[in-house]
Amino acid sequence: MAVIDLNSDVGESFGRWTLGDDAAMFASVSSANVACGFHAGDPSVIRSTCKKAAEAGVVIGAHVGYRDLAGFGRRFLDVDPMELADDVVYQIGALQALAATTGGSVQYVKPHGGLYNAIVRHTAQAQAVVEAVKSVDPNLPILGLPGSEVLRLADAAGLRGVSEAFADRAYNPDGTLVPRTQAGAVLHDPAEVAEHVLRMAIEQSVRTIDGSILKIRAESICVHGDSPGAVAMATAVKSALDDAGVSIGSFL
Amino acid sequence: MAVIDLNSDVGESFGRWTLGDDAAMFASVSSANVACGFHAGDPSVIRSTCKKAAEAGVVIGAHVGYRDLAGFGRRFLDVDPMELADDVVYQIGALQALAATTGGSVQYVKPHGGLYNAIVRHTAQAQAVVEAVKSVDPNLPILGLPGSEVLRLADAAGLRGVSEAFADRAYNPDGTLVPRTQAGAVLHDPAEVAEHVLRMAIEQSVRTIDGSILKIRAESICVHGDSPGAVAMATAVKSALDDAGVSIGSFL
Amino acid sequence: MAVIDLNSDVGESFGRWTLGDDAAMFASVSSANVACGFHAGDPSVIRSTCKKAAEAGVVIGAHVGYRDLAGFGRRFLDVDPMELADDVVYQIGALQALAATTGGSVQYVKPHGGLYNAIVRHTAQAQAVVEAVKSVDPNLPILGLPGSEVLRLADAAGLRGVSEAFADRAYNPDGTLVPRTQAGAVLHDPAEVAEHVLRMAIEQSVRTIDGSILKIRAESICVHGDSPGAVAMATAVKSALDDAGVSIGSFL
Amino acid sequence: MAVIDLNSDVGESFGRWTLGDDAAMFASVSSANVACGFHAGDPSVIRSTCKKAAEAGVVIGAHVGYRDLAGFGRRFLDVDPMELADDVVYQIGALQALAATTGGSVQYVKPHGGLYNAIVRHTAQAQAVVEAVKSVDPNLPILGLPGSEVLRLADAAGLRGVSEAFADRAYNPDGTLVPRTQAGAVLHDPAEVAEHVLRMAIEQSVRTIDGSILKIRAESICVHGDSPGAVAMATAVKSALDDAGVSIGSFL
Repeated sequence: MAVIDLNSDVGESFGRWTLGDDAAMFASVSSANVACGFHAGDPSVIRSTCKKAAEAGVVIGAHVGYRDLAGFGRRFLDVDPMELADDVVYQIGALQALAATTGGSVQYVKPHGGLYNAIVRHTAQAQAVVEAVKSVDPNLPILGLPGSEVLRLADAAGLRGVSEAFADRAYNPDGTLVPRTQAGAVLHDPAEVAEHVLRMAIEQSVRTIDGSILKIRAESICVHGDSPGAVAMATAVKSALDDAGVSIGSFL
Repeated sequence: MAVIDLNSDVGESFGRWTLGDDAAMFASVSSANVACGFHAGDPSVIRSTCKKAAEAGVVIGAHVGYRDLAGFGRRFLDVDPMELADDVVYQIGALQALAATTGGSVQYVKPHGGLYNAIVRHTAQAQAVVEAVKSVDPNLPILGLPGSEVLRLADAAGLRGVSEAFADRAYNPDGTLVPRTQAGAVLHDPAEVAEHVLRMAIEQSVRTIDGSILKIRAESICVHGDSPGAVAMATAVKSALDDAGVSIGSFL
Repeated sequence: MAVIDLNSDVGESFGRWTLGDDAAMFASVSSANVACGFHAGDPSVIRSTCKKAAEAGVVIGAHVGYRDLAGFGRRFLDVDPMELADDVVYQIGALQALAATTGGSVQYVKPHGGLYNAIVRHTAQAQAVVEAVKSVDPNLPILGLPGSEVLRLADAAGLRGVSEAFADRAYNPDGTLVPRTQAGAVLHDPAEVAEHVLRMAIEQSVRTIDGSILKIRAESICVHGDSPGAVAMATAVKSALDDAGVSIGSFL
Repeated sequence: MAVIDLNSDVGESFGRWTLGDDAAMFASVSSANVACGFHAGDPSVIRSTCKKAAEAGVVIGAHVGYRDLAGFGRRFLDVDPMELADDVVYQIGALQALAATTGGSVQYVKPHGGLYNAIVRHTAQAQAVVEAVKSVDPNLPILGLPGSEVLRLADAAGLRGVSEAFADRAYNPDGTLVPRTQAGAVLHDPAEVAEHVLRMAIEQSVRTIDGSILKIRAESICVHGDSPGAVAMATAVKSALDDAGVSIGSFL
């Protein structure tokens, strides 16, 4: 029976501000990218998110980002690679300690937002992330875009890189994501998203924006958790996978 | 041969701003209270401080504080105890991960500044600190003022509380510190400080501000690291202890 | 015809996080307490809030707070009065500049959250707020609780203090607010809130929690904007005032 | 008699951390680039810096930067231009209010660090800075590198752009600065720096790194204030200008 990992960003509330419905997302996903305080997530949010993840049997990952609360970690920051590596270690360690108090543990790392996008091509920052993860625990896999620098360097360093696809993003015929600035970049129809995911999970392929079918590697599929229809979309995806006999489970 | 622990605050630089001469202090002390990023210390500062501490054979402690960079953690913050506990766990975890990358480890916890002062009497915040430390590792001792709530509650929770005295602070006849707002509160003469420390280390007593001699318990003596004459003072203290045949070593 | 001012907290979103429905609140209130970046509100949020306020004909006030994003400015911070005064000037100035770009201007000051509560009794912090406002513009009124230190000191300094009542809070027979920790402290029923406000606006009195009627002075009534039913409640209050022939207008 | 403006970065302390010797720099310069709280400078530091500047007869400028305390505003941040414009207005407004309490006023704007470097070429961010300044006060000049986008766009918008040269930086034969990563990029010898400045001030030219003489436009010369020998260097420059009969005065 086929198994696919669904991952989602959680723990992105901060102080008085709430974002997303983490508890509802935990009913549909197998991996939780928990914010670590640099782009979102305060310590109390992190702990309660880890607790809910542990209770739901969802695997906890460290969603590490740039130190940029005002920009939610989405803006490229030209941080020195040595400092970036230290920032990543700091975030993972903080999450590890909070997860441990809830009986959970950090089992993978996924860079967030601007950092995620940067290390598709930015070799020095990608290497910094890989070295940081390796220095904390070389058994922690790193999630990234297929073909990215960070996955290439993770592999070179003896770490496991995990290829990720996006449930609600349109793909170009060359396998890159259609930029958000372009029409049709983001899929909003739950049925369409469910079909997209089924093709990824079962056929390891996507229908691209020009209608062609492209083989892609997806060991995990990202389901966004902070959009208005996020929970409905995740539920539709889960339901479609259930109907197709595909089980949702961690890539570990 | 008598042994006494000297502890000092280190790792309090932040980004472009440097504070204290940590490397010089490591020549005189046995315990390093390393800032964890909430009142001071960025991840790169923390890592390099841990590295220097490990190289100098100085024990690393987590110097946890209120989330208040602008106030350097010195201002009382009426934080909810649950949130304070989470903040403390977060800070310890971050330091643990960075210390581990340098081959070191966190071996005790010392609350900083406004938090240190608050939990002398503030039961709820003191309890939060104790619970946070216990949830991370019940073997981590907590440094505090003799007679403080935090030491009482640490003991009640089965944790080791470590009584601390201050090398450069004058004492009232009842064992409390002379408030900084009062004349003579802080000793500035290295010779006088050295004599103060010798009496603490050898006779477990202090000469109070009215000249009387008072028994105090001091398993560790704090030597400040961020004042202009800090290094000279630490050197004088070390030298006086050496001459008196008192060895400087961790309380562990 | 009677006129009463309704004020509400707005501009409390920050970066990726949104809070409240400011545009909807502007349909019901006459005064907008705009967050200034220390407890909430980033510069873009502030500008767009000022723009909407100006378009709706709502008066802009500076909602100044402690520097505490993680705590939303709700936690008491024992900041030095001189530093608090500078923090307040900084916030007002930032808001003035952003308001001016939208054609608006800052016309009063209301301390926020933990600061608001502190300066009911904390003379030194209250004096710092008064001096800060006076140094920026002695014509700016300050909103506060009737009987508070801040209103007393504003008056002594030749500034206008504006007495404020709360639409959704229960009152003790002595005129103080029933603490939030006590049952019945917050009114949730729009009809009950509307009746509460009518009595404040028309009779300058409140029915207290024991049923007695108490005279209070209310030049402005605070309608909360960030609770789930905030807009419905504000609409009910406005509608009740309209029906009673009471006009909603600034206290200026 | 020739007159040249010397400008220096001041007010870059933050909370417990001090940086530079502003009071000493004020004896040698005519323009003070005052940090506005985003890359450095807390409100109390800003106020006391404005006070000292006003007392020394030094003109106050707003040293606006990216929101990045940990990076001291030196790292490029890919902030949205609209948000950057709002950030700049916020910073100028905050400084205006604090300067006004000391009897001073903001008379120009100089972008800082990473932002300064970005807007040499980054048209959208340069335009955002120009629009922000214009929206606050179209009479405020903007300091920038000769030939930069920001000066070109300031001119196009009807604002005054002020060309700036650097006292302690080596120049390439094409007028660009020798990158800091290259040997000889920064001049450390006070005598050499003084000669460099004299040529800029009197002959409107520089001796480039290959020995050739190049005409440059310099309405203001930046003297760094935060390096170890900063005060000595500024004193040497002032003394050399005095001896040559060149007066130090604002470009206004």
